[in-house]
Formats: sequence, structure tokens, C-alpha cells
Amino acid sequence: MSYPPSDAVDGDVPASADQALGLQEFLSERGHELVTTTDTGEGLDRELGDAEVLITTPFWPVYLEEDRVSKASNLKLVITAGVGSDHTDPETARQHGITVAEVTGSNVVSVAEHNVLQILALVRNFVPAHANARMTGEHADRGWDVAGVSAPSHDLEGKTVGIVGLGAIGARTALRLKGFDVRTLYYANHRRSPAEEETLGVRYARLDTLVRESDVICLALPLMEGSQALFGPERLQAMKPGSWLVNTARGAIVDRDALVEAIESGHLAGYAGDTWYPQPAPADHPWRSLPEGSEAMTIHCSGMTREAQDRIAEGVREMLEAHVDGRPLPDDFVMVSPDS
Amino acid sequence: MSYPPSDAVDGDVPASADQALGLQEFLSERGHELVTTTDTGEGLDRELGDAEVLITTPFWPVYLEEDRVSKASNLKLVITAGVGSDHTDPETARQHGITVAEVTGSNVVSVAEHNVLQILALVRNFVPAHANARMTGEHADRGWDVAGVSAPSHDLEGKTVGIVGLGAIGARTALRLKGFDVRTLYYANHRRSPAEEETLGVRYARLDTLVRESDVICLALPLMEGSQALFGPERLQAMKPGSWLVNTARGAIVDRDALVEAIESGHLAGYAGDTWYPQPAPADHPWRSLPEGSEAMTIHCSGMTREAQDRIAEGVREMLEAHVDGRPLPDDFVMVSPDS
Repeated sequence: MSYPPSDAVDGDVPASADQALGLQEFLSERGHELVTTTDTGEGLDRELGDAEVLITTPFWPVYLEEDRVSKASNLKLVITAGVGSDHTDPETARQHGITVAEVTGSNVVSVAEHNVLQILALVRNFVPAHANARMTGEHADRGWDVAGVSAPSHDLEGKTVGIVGLGAIGARTALRLKGFDVRTLYYANHRRSPAEEETLGVRYARLDTLVRESDVICLALPLMEGSQALFGPERLQAMKPGSWLVNTARGAIVDRDALVEAIESGHLAGYAGDTWYPQPAPADHPWRSLPEGSEAMTIHCSGMTREAQDRIAEGVREMLEAHVDGRPLPDDFVMVSPDS
Repeated sequence: MSYPPSDAVDGDVPASADQALGLQEFLSERGHELVTTTDTGEGLDRELGDAEVLITTPFWPVYLEEDRVSKASNLKLVITAGVGSDHTDPETARQHGITVAEVTGSNVVSVAEHNVLQILALVRNFVPAHANARMTGEHADRGWDVAGVSAPSHDLEGKTVGIVGLGAIGARTALRLKGFDVRTLYYANHRRSPAEEETLGVRYARLDTLVRESDVICLALPLMEGSQALFGPERLQAMKPGSWLVNTARGAIVDRDALVEAIESGHLAGYAGDTWYPQPAPADHPWRSLPEGSEAMTIHCSGMTREAQDRIAEGVREMLEAHVDGRPLPDDFVMVSPDS
């Protein structure tokens, strides 16, 4: 068993890893071995040779494609310690008899909160205001620059927010925006009922309409066929001049270079992404050096609060126990089943 | 007339200054002179010698006390281009026959939004997550540190938020928090009716109770007798270990050095202040260099969004027109009247 923990960088053990869960003890009692590694290259391939279960995370994913899976002949179960299993190719998994599962619902509140945070940070120009207070970055030599910081700062009140995807996260984002006196549009494959729309304070719009009318667009849809680079050059150019884009969903939904172009040309006022492609993002990923004042980026931590980690840990343990005991996994956790 | 504009530092003219308002033209048509200065020392004293109206701002205030006022023998009206006139001593103003007025209500939504932003930024550990994405500060040399960034990051959901002061800003903050599934307590001089409490989603608590039970405390009260250093050493120590404090109200409500001690000892998890004392804050103000990860400071820009600046500009102009025409100022703008 291989468990790339989230402590890949600084040696700290997060609440979701073996320490808090007691995975090590639980598994060795049952005669299983827990192997943890931060090596997603050859080191992982060696371990995968005889691993039955692979646990990976959305923010430090193991990209599972045919090449790798074909060498993992004992692999039966791939668990995403979190939500979003797009790093595992579903067709490949199915063909090799592998179940793919994730901790459904574990981070929906966490990501919805992050959406509101990143919307406010962009619209209200928080990053430069903070840099000025700390005298860092371009503000290292500047005095008390309230005028400069405030000029591109706006109230969220009265703005139109467009949510693309209105699943568990999008809906919770809408609920949190209700108190802000905004107009909230959504686009999704399935329309909500009028009663649900009323409760969430949202109105349906076709994607083109939402893109054209929104001051802020918030992506809350999975990465799948049809959403890859959904926000490419044309769609980004179709956004309102001076509008903002928030993406806690998946980095690859936004075209990397087209986004840089839309920001650098000034067409978009700002981008706040929590998700990247690939992850971890290399040091030279252009989203790491967007112009100061045009971004409020984070490192795919939106769904990794302590509370989310606890829920994830609990879900992972529940799945492992079921697997080890030969019981079926909870239905709502299974994303790909080899039997389906 | 003297108008220290908000462009004191970088030469940019904000929407609220004479440019957008056309104050210069309006006043010269009526035979008045508009003098703008960023000098709050001797240069200002010289101008004040024959000024009839002084316009100042909360974020770059002119501190008006006996010494200064006694030299301004023609001064009749002091306008705060914003909200919060605590930089003008009310008793001194009254004794010298000076009216003090501000643009009541102009920034209440703006500051309420900033409260929610700073609460989320602290609780969710935004600043280090952003620094890691940008590879700045302590994260300049670090890789993809999701574990380190996430370890002190929390959901707001389920937390207790205490709002001190439930006026126009505090109430709007409470409304914006309703969607976040938090427990909201408030303390204020005047209790709201049960119906209002229900609408705002808040419950009254005595100050000591609020301080003891809150995970996040948000200050939303004016600076006045009784609120100066209200959060001093003892009250800060009475806060919950690991809790957060947000202060968009006035810097002097929090004891400067006691706050530093509470943060550095680790008793408080973080402080997000928009307001400082004095302002502009000198480069060596200790709140400008709180430990990384313990703060989300901004530079008193919470009430200075473009939309707020427009409302402020409109209000200032309304007052100037009334004064020049010899009409009474709008009642709700007058903070100190020499006749009362």
C-alpha cells in the first residue's frame, strides 16, 4: 500500500496522514503493510508493483494512466483522499478491474468558503492592500498608498456573480453569497427546480449569457470531457472587460496561456486560482508570477482545512476497513466500479 | 479650504477628490478657494489660519485638538470624507463653534464586506497559502507546501463569531455571515429587538461572555470614551486560545503592544486589522511585521472602494453646497453641532 502523504515537502505530518488516523497500526494488525512515499516517479512505480491499494491526494496527485496501471498488476482500489479523481483515467481503471473511490462531500463546505474568500480578495484588491501594510513586493518602498490600493478596489454588492456548475460546492457557494446583495447566475448541465433556485438565490443562464454578464465568474464543475480548457482564449475574451475569475475547481479547466494573455492585456481584472495543472505547479508556472494586483492565488489548499482533513481521514479509513474486511465500499464514495 | 486628498503618496487622484467631484470648479464659481495639501504639519497650520472648512479623511486624518483649533480662527466646519470623526475632539470643536460632519452610511457595506474577507483570510490561512503560490516571504525557497499551509487552516463553518458593536456595519457583517453556518454573538450598548436578532441571525452576549466563547471576534464599534484600548492585555488574554481578531473599526480600540504580545506568545492565532493608530502607520509600527501566518493586515482601505468613494464624494459635495448656500447640513451627517 502506498500513501503519498501531504507532508511531501516539509516533513510535517498532517492530520489526514497515518498519525491521526492510526492507519499504520490498523493495517499492520490485519497483516498489511503501509508504505508512504512522496516520490511520484520511479520510486512509486516500484511500490505499485505489488500494491493492492493506492491512496493519493488531489493536491499532490498520482497521475494514473495505462503505462503505469499496466505495471501495477495487484492494484484493486485507488482512493482519492479528498474529492476529484480526474488524475485517474476512468476507462483504464475499469479495464484493469480497479475501483476508484473518493471521500464524497468531505470538502464541499471548505471549498465553498474558499470561493467566497477568493472572490472578495480579488474584487476588494486585498493582496496589494496587504502588501502595502507589510511593505513587501512592489510596495516595499512605498508609503501609505491608500489611493493606489483603493483605486482598483470594489464592493461586491450589486455585482453579478456567475457560478459554472451548481453541484455540492457551487450550491454552497451561492448560499454564502446570498447575504452580499449580489445577482447570482448559474450554468449547469441540469437545471435546479424553481424552489431550489429560490432557496439558493440563483437564476439559470446559458453559458454564453453567464460569461457575458458576470462581473465575477466562479468555476465549480469537475474536470471531465467537455470542461478541459472550457475557458480558452475565446471564452476568456467573451468575459466582461475588467471582470474577475475564480477557480477552485481544476486548473486544466482554464487554458494556462490564454489566461496569462487575458490578464496581461488587462481584459480581466484578476484571477484567483486554487487549482493548477500539473500539480505541484513548477516554479516557472506562469500563474505563479502574474502581475501584482491581478491575482489571489493559493496552492490547492481550499479543501484541506483541518476540519476537511478530519472528514477525509475518516472516509479513507472507512473505505480501507471495508476493503480489508471484504465488504463493499459505501456507494456514494465509488466513482469508477469495474463491475459497471 | 483645505482638502488633504487620498493621493498623498503616489500622485494619483482618487474618485473622491476634486477631479471626479468638480469641487474646484464649483467652489471657485462661488468665490471660494480650494487648497489641497498632504502636509498635516506646519503647512496645514498655515492654511488653517484662514480656512472656513476643513475636509479630512479617516485613513489620512488631521488630528484636531485644542492647540491646532485655537489657531484656526475662521474654521466653521470640519468634514470627514468618510465615516468616523474621532480624529476631531468633539468638546474642543463645540467650544470653538465648529460643526463636525461625516458621510454617514457611505461605507457601511464596504466595511462589512471587508470584515468577512478578513475573517475568512485569517481562519483559512490565506496569506501563507498565497505566499507559497507566489514563492515570496518565508515561502521563497519552499516547494509545494500544502501540508504546512493547511495545518493552521480552518473552516469558518461551526465557529462562534462575536461582533462587538452592532450598528450599521456590525449588522451588515452579521447578515453576510448568515450563510456560513456560524453561531454569531454580539455585544452592544443597546440590545436589538428579538425580531431584529432573528433577522440578523445573532444572539446577545455580555462582553466577557462573547470574548470567552468566540473563535473569531470582529470589532465594529466607534472609537470613543470607553472603547479606547478596550482590547488591552487582560481582555486579549481572556480570548479563546487560538482565536482570531478582526478590527476594521479603529486601531486604538486594540492596545498595540498587548496585541503583539498576544500574537507572539501564540495565544491568538491571528490578527487582521484595517485600522491603525496613528495613521499613516510609521514603517516601524509593530503590526507591520507580525510573524508571517499570524496576520492579514490592510491599510485602512476597507471603506474606500470605488463605490464607497463615489458615495463619499456625493455626500461631501452635498455638505459643501449646503454650507456655501447657508443652508443647514443634512441632520444625519452632523456628528457635533456647536448649538447642541
